[in-house]
Amino acid sequence: MTALYSLGLGIGTQNSKGEWLEVFYPKPVLHPSEALANAIAPLIDYQGGNVAVAIDTAKIADICAAIESIDAELSAIVSQFKNSKKPLVVTLLASDEGPQTAPEAYLKLHLLSHRLVKPHETNLSGAFGVLANVAWTNEGAIDIAELPQRQLEARLEGRMLSVDCVDKFPKMTNYIVPTGVRIAHTARVRLGAYIGEGTTIMHEGFVNFNAGTMGTSMVEGRISAGVVIGEGSDLGGGCSTMGTLSGGGNIIIAVGKECLIGANAGIGIPLGDRCTVESGLYVTAGTKVALLDDNNQVVEHIKARDLAGKSDLLFRRNSLTGTVECKTNKSAIALNEELHANN
Amino acid sequence: MTALYSLGLGIGTQNSKGEWLEVFYPKPVLHPSEALANAIAPLIDYQGGNVAVAIDTAKIADICAAIESIDAELSAIVSQFKNSKKPLVVTLLASDEGPQTAPEAYLKLHLLSHRLVKPHETNLSGAFGVLANVAWTNEGAIDIAELPQRQLEARLEGRMLSVDCVDKFPKMTNYIVPTGVRIAHTARVRLGAYIGEGTTIMHEGFVNFNAGTMGTSMVEGRISAGVVIGEGSDLGGGCSTMGTLSGGGNIIIAVGKECLIGANAGIGIPLGDRCTVESGLYVTAGTKVALLDDNNQVVEHIKARDLAGKSDLLFRRNSLTGTVECKTNKSAIALNEELHANN
Amino acid sequence: MTALYSLGLGIGTQNSKGEWLEVFYPKPVLHPSEALANAIAPLIDYQGGNVAVAIDTAKIADICAAIESIDAELSAIVSQFKNSKKPLVVTLLASDEGPQTAPEAYLKLHLLSHRLVKPHETNLSGAFGVLANVAWTNEGAIDIAELPQRQLEARLEGRMLSVDCVDKFPKMTNYIVPTGVRIAHTARVRLGAYIGEGTTIMHEGFVNFNAGTMGTSMVEGRISAGVVIGEGSDLGGGCSTMGTLSGGGNIIIAVGKECLIGANAGIGIPLGDRCTVESGLYVTAGTKVALLDDNNQVVEHIKARDLAGKSDLLFRRNSLTGTVECKTNKSAIALNEELHANN
Repeated sequence: MTALYSLGLGIGTQNSKGEWLEVFYPKPVLHPSEALANAIAPLIDYQGGNVAVAIDTAKIADICAAIESIDAELSAIVSQFKNSKKPLVVTLLASDEGPQTAPEAYLKLHLLSHRLVKPHETNLSGAFGVLANVAWTNEGAIDIAELPQRQLEARLEGRMLSVDCVDKFPKMTNYIVPTGVRIAHTARVRLGAYIGEGTTIMHEGFVNFNAGTMGTSMVEGRISAGVVIGEGSDLGGGCSTMGTLSGGGNIIIAVGKECLIGANAGIGIPLGDRCTVESGLYVTAGTKVALLDDNNQVVEHIKARDLAGKSDLLFRRNSLTGTVECKTNKSAIALNEELHANN
Repeated sequence: MTALYSLGLGIGTQNSKGEWLEVFYPKPVLHPSEALANAIAPLIDYQGGNVAVAIDTAKIADICAAIESIDAELSAIVSQFKNSKKPLVVTLLASDEGPQTAPEAYLKLHLLSHRLVKPHETNLSGAFGVLANVAWTNEGAIDIAELPQRQLEARLEGRMLSVDCVDKFPKMTNYIVPTGVRIAHTARVRLGAYIGEGTTIMHEGFVNFNAGTMGTSMVEGRISAGVVIGEGSDLGGGCSTMGTLSGGGNIIIAVGKECLIGANAGIGIPLGDRCTVESGLYVTAGTKVALLDDNNQVVEHIKARDLAGKSDLLFRRNSLTGTVECKTNKSAIALNEELHANN
Repeated sequence: MTALYSLGLGIGTQNSKGEWLEVFYPKPVLHPSEALANAIAPLIDYQGGNVAVAIDTAKIADICAAIESIDAELSAIVSQFKNSKKPLVVTLLASDEGPQTAPEAYLKLHLLSHRLVKPHETNLSGAFGVLANVAWTNEGAIDIAELPQRQLEARLEGRMLSVDCVDKFPKMTNYIVPTGVRIAHTARVRLGAYIGEGTTIMHEGFVNFNAGTMGTSMVEGRISAGVVIGEGSDLGGGCSTMGTLSGGGNIIIAVGKECLIGANAGIGIPLGDRCTVESGLYVTAGTKVALLDDNNQVVEHIKARDLAGKSDLLFRRNSLTGTVECKTNKSAIALNEELHANN
C-alpha cells in the first residue's frame, strides 16, 4: 500500500436518509505511518482512493486490536467508540484532492483546526458543494428539511430547541479547542480555522475557514476566508480584511509579523512585516497613496496595490488634508529603487 | 363573517401570572379563506375584532375535525397540539391594526419571517409596548422577575441555565428558518426579519425586525429596523444602515437592486439600483458631495440627501484630496436636468 | 472584628483537581454589617484577611440560623444551598486588595455587575492571573484540559456539548441580570460589566469587565475594558472606544453625559458632556483637528488629546476638504483662554 495523505476515525450525524451532515474526528492523522494505514485498510476492505466508509460498533474491537501497538493514543480514543449511539465512519484519503463527500471535507477542516496543516496547505476546492446546509442546534446537527417537525415536537414537549447556526460550516470549538488560545465568543470561528498558539480572539473577532493566525495575536477584527495573520500581529476591534470570496478579487490578503491594524480599519492588500494601519482607515488595492520618505517628504503618488507585501509601512489619513499617506523608514532614493526595480 | 386579516394557532409560554411571554405559530395564515375562518371561529366563541384566546388540549380534536377538509396541512400540524405540555392559543385578527397583545404581535412577526408580508406591509405600531422583556434561555422564555430564583435552582441542581438574550424580541430561527437561506450566527436576526430566498447572512450580519432582504444577498453588515435590501445587493462586513429608530430621522433607508455597500461603510440615505459605496466611507444625509459627471468633472457640490434613491451612483472619498465624490454615468447636462427638475 | 470590605456565599465549579473554575454568588454583599460578618466568621474559623473557604451542605443550617435575624433575604437564599449538588464557598474580604484566588476575583466581578461598585471602584489588579481559562459550555464550566474527553463522551452518547466561550471571563447574564436593562445578545457582555438602569445593549453592543454605562444608554458599539459611559449617552452601531488594554495607552477613555458617538466611529480620547462624533470618524489622541469657533472659523490646529474631557464638542470630517474639524459653541477668545490657561 502506498502512503496515505490523511486518515480519520469519526463519529457523525446523518439525516433520515442516511446522508452525512457532519463528522467529528477526535484525532485526525496527517500522513499516517504505513503501519497504521496497513492495519486499518483491510478491516474496511479499502481498495485505494479517497473513501469514507461507515462502520458499526462491532468493528471497533478489531480496529483497536490492529492499531494498539502502532498508535496507543488513537486506539484508546477509538476503543470508546464501541458504545457509540451515533454512526461511525472511517475516512482514508490517498491523496490531497478536493473533497468529494462530507466526511472527506470534515477531515480536511479538522486538519486545519488541529494545526496539522496551515491555511492553503490542503486542497478544499469543491468543499462548498459537498457540505450540506445544516441547522446546528442544542440537540445536534439537523437536516434543514427535517427542522420544522423537530421544532414543533420540541415545543409541544416543553423543550427548547435552539437553532444557533444555519450554515455549511459549524463552529470550531464544538470539534476542537487547540492549546493555548482564548476565544471569547466561539460562534464567530468556523471549523477549518487555524488558530495559532497564543492567540486571543475577543468577542468582535472572527475567523473564517482556511484562514487564521500563525502564533501570538490579539484578534478583535475579522479574518476572512484565506487570510493568514503572522506571528505577533494584532487586529483592532471591528477591523476588516478582504477575503477572496468577497471583493478581494484575486489578490490573496495576508498580514506579516508584528503588524497592527487599527480598530475599524481595513485592508484590501497584503501587508509585509511591522506595518500599521491607522484606526478607521480602509486601504483598498485601488487607494491612491502619497508615499512619504524617512523625512516625511512626498516621493510619489502610487496605488496601494503597488505597496502590497512590503514591510515597515504606516498607513494613515492626514487629518488636515484628507490625503491617505504611507510613511516609510526609507530614503527617497531607496524607495524609488525598490518600487521601480521591475519597471 | 367577514374575511380575516390573519389567523394563527400557537404554542406559547406564560409567566407564573398567566401572562403570555411569547407564542410560536408553526403555520401562520395571512388572509385565511372564509371557510377556514368560519370553521374555527365558533369553536372559540369568536365575536369579532382582534383576539387571542387560550384553549386547552381538549379543544384540539374539534378544531382538527372542523378544518381537516379545508386545510389538511394546518390540520396535520394542529393535531399534534393535543399532547402539548405548553399553553395553546388561537389568534384571530379581523384587521391589520397595531397589536394589542403579545400573541397578536407574535403573529405579525411570524407573518414577516414566514415571508407572508414584506417589511412595512403589516402594522406593528405599539408592538414594543405589548411585548414583555424576556430572558431567553436554554430552558425557554423566562419572565425577568422570575429569573433569579430559576438561576439559583439550576445552579444548585448542577444544571446550566444559560441566559442568551434579554430582549423583547427573540431570535428568528427558533421560530422559523425560511427556505433557501444561510444564517451563520442566528443570534443576530430577530423574529420579524424578512430574509429573502437566496440570502446568506454571515457572522457579522444583522437583521432587525420589519427589515430584510428581498432575494439573493450576501449580508455581512447591519440591516436596521425598517431597512429593505433589494435583490442582488450585498452588504460588506461591518457596514451600517441607519435605522429610523436611531438617528436616521424620518428618512426611511432602503437599498435598491444590485448595490454594494463596502466593508465598514455606512449609509444614511436610501440608494437606488446599482449603487456602490466604497469600503470605509460613511455617507450621511448631510454629507456634502462633489458630483462628478461621466467625464469625472465636478458638476456641483450637493448634499447626499439630494441624491437619495437615485441609481447608478458610486460614492467614494478621493484619497488624495479627502473629498467625498459621487461618480455618475451621466453627462453634466443630464445631471443638471435631473437634479433641478423640481426647483 | 473589624468591618469587612465584602462577603459572598457562593456555588461554584471545580475541576477534577478541586481547583475553582468559577463561583456564582446569588447575593454578594459590599461592606457587610459587623453583625453579619460576626455571625458568619466563627462558623468558618475565620482568622482575618481575604479568604475563600469551601464548606459542605451540613454547614448551611448553622449559617442560616446565625444570619436569619440579621439578613432575612440572604438567609432565604442560602437556606436553599442545603441540597446543592455543586461545591459551596464562603468568601470574606477584609480589604480591597487585588484578588488572590478565583473565588475572590468572582466576588469582585459580581460587585460590579450587581452595581454595588462602579468601574475602577474595586481593585482588580492581578485578576487575570488568578482566573483560569475555562471552556464555558451548556454543561457548565469545564477545565480546558478535561474538555477533549468530555467532548468525546458527549458525542458517543448523542448529546451536544456546545463550547460557547473559551475565556477567563464568563458572560454576565449567567450570573446576574440587573434590573431595567435589555441585552439583545448576552455573549458580548462579560461578568464584571456595570450596566446602568435604563440601558439597552443591542446585538452589536459589547461591554468588557470594569466598564459600562451609568444610566440610560443605547449601546450598539463597543465599550472596552475600563471605559465608562455617562447617563444619556448613546453609542452607534459598531463604534469603538479604545481600551487601556489595547492601544489606548495610559489615557483612560470615558464618555460624559448626553454624548453621541456615531455608527462605525471611534474615540481614543475621553469626551466631556454633550459631545458628538460623526458616523464613520475615528478620533485618536494624535489626530490633528481644526478647531472651529461659534462662527465656524478656524481658531487653531491642535491635537485631539488637547480636547480630552471637554464638553459641547462636535467632531466631523469636512467632506469637501477632508479636514477633521471640531466645532464648538464658544467664541474664538473664549476658546483661546480655555485651551491655553495652563501654558
